[in-house]
Amino acid sequence: MKSYDVIIVGGGPAGLSAAIYAARGNLSTAVFEKALIGGQINVTYEVENYPGIPEVLSGFELSDRIKQQADKFGPEFIEEEIIKIDFASTNGVKKVYTDDNEYLAKTIIIASGAQPRYLNCPGEQEFIGKGVSYCATCDGALYRNKVVAVIGGGDSAVEEGMFLTKFASKVYVIHRRDELRAVKSIQDRAFKNEKMVFIWDSVVEEVQGENFVKNLVLKNLKTEEKQDLPVDGVFVYVGILPNNELLKKDITLDKSGFVITNEIMETNISGVYAIGDLRNTPLRQVITACSDGAIAAFYAEKFISEME
Amino acid sequence: MKSYDVIIVGGGPAGLSAAIYAARGNLSTAVFEKALIGGQINVTYEVENYPGIPEVLSGFELSDRIKQQADKFGPEFIEEEIIKIDFASTNGVKKVYTDDNEYLAKTIIIASGAQPRYLNCPGEQEFIGKGVSYCATCDGALYRNKVVAVIGGGDSAVEEGMFLTKFASKVYVIHRRDELRAVKSIQDRAFKNEKMVFIWDSVVEEVQGENFVKNLVLKNLKTEEKQDLPVDGVFVYVGILPNNELLKKDITLDKSGFVITNEIMETNISGVYAIGDLRNTPLRQVITACSDGAIAAFYAEKFISEME
Repeated sequence: MKSYDVIIVGGGPAGLSAAIYAARGNLSTAVFEKALIGGQINVTYEVENYPGIPEVLSGFELSDRIKQQADKFGPEFIEEEIIKIDFASTNGVKKVYTDDNEYLAKTIIIASGAQPRYLNCPGEQEFIGKGVSYCATCDGALYRNKVVAVIGGGDSAVEEGMFLTKFASKVYVIHRRDELRAVKSIQDRAFKNEKMVFIWDSVVEEVQGENFVKNLVLKNLKTEEKQDLPVDGVFVYVGILPNNELLKKDITLDKSGFVITNEIMETNISGVYAIGDLRNTPLRQVITACSDGAIAAFYAEKFISEME
Repeated sequence: MKSYDVIIVGGGPAGLSAAIYAARGNLSTAVFEKALIGGQINVTYEVENYPGIPEVLSGFELSDRIKQQADKFGPEFIEEEIIKIDFASTNGVKKVYTDDNEYLAKTIIIASGAQPRYLNCPGEQEFIGKGVSYCATCDGALYRNKVVAVIGGGDSAVEEGMFLTKFASKVYVIHRRDELRAVKSIQDRAFKNEKMVFIWDSVVEEVQGENFVKNLVLKNLKTEEKQDLPVDGVFVYVGILPNNELLKKDITLDKSGFVITNEIMETNISGVYAIGDLRNTPLRQVITACSDGAIAAFYAEKFISEME
């Protein structure tokens, strides 16, 4: 059975950064990614806030650069889907099961990421990165003097809507109910903000555009009436879903399903780390994910050195 | 009096990353750096583990790229030395004093960094980045099959020495006393490691070389005898000194003088953040410093939005 110092679950920026630090630190390292290397960032049209890369590049190019860099240090990339992990096998060595194989690891770094909850309406997927966004911190600055809509009524939706008023000329907040779920203090500030316009009891039926988003078709859930809303962009804030399927039995999660870690990225199990969007991080950005990866790999090395 | 949303104290990677995130988030932002933009990383000869930059570049080039990127979003760079900060002025607005001027800020992000404690012997400064290093995680991989020395006897010195045995053919540990200060479990592993050679009661009198380090002149403190020790590199682990002069009165520090922050980088004072090498971070790397900066700027924006 093949055995590694570190098995990294997930090949997004967090996992790739962990791979750079682990493999460069001379740990035998395998990265499992069943889909495309790069993860969620691949669907980002433009990244201009990853420190150290002044030129604007696509999310795909950024993850490709991190992958190229990892390759210099020789981690193994394994394109198999993990179906089960035994986090506490013999002597603390963990076991990873795929459909065809089993692998052993002294440490496991989980970087399986998270994904936005989608609207699941026509046009949404088509315009991701072309006017449909799930991250105001990432993309808000691209909408100076534009009209945007935020979908949702929770804290994130309203706070990010407020943030967008720094750039956009008008921010519609479209919510399926007739009141916000956001906490009172945030609501108060939102209602006072003249750029914020609330559209209640409504859902997005379709995202329309040509090369870029141009229009939302809204439906009022009470009256069943439909309405066109011309916008330049739409920010969807109806939830974020951690990819935690493999972890639920053994790893401590917070109430939203994100992994609880300490400051060295360790989970409730020694030698098992969680990094990036999957953990209960204060900010979901490529830079924070890469930092998590470096920290986890550094402490995985210390953990292994203490095992020996 | 000039007034900003965010004043960032220090222009190393942490401060520059905070500047990117703050200025791009439409906060009026000033970065105070009395010396060279870039901080400690400027003296690093080669950086090959900053995720996203596959080509090897110098620390100076890396900080220059981050600076260029910050410039796109227009933060002000002020080349004055801060002599005092009033962290709790009227209505939570803070005041920063330089020799010539005073400035107001709604939030302050402190990124004044840390510096290694130097050996202060001839040759040390001359060979920084050319065989003299203060960071095994950064530079260890450059010493494959080479002979290196580690100076110091604490946990860091011995752990990093152990880490270096993954690359180097031999690792001398040079300590001024006749026993280690490192904890017992680390000592036990170190003494078992065949690549580790301990030289007791000794200090480095001089670092010698041509283009690169070639030799250490050691002095035995008990016998006063001098000894040549040919090495390819020397890792100095005799302490790290946080640049906390402006903070001692008001900001809570740990016993080594690093700023204690919570996970959003906030100090004991609301609206005051500490990032990078200055804080009690689990890992001192450019990637972690930049991540800290992004997080602090993100939460500074939230803090300001709640003030209004």
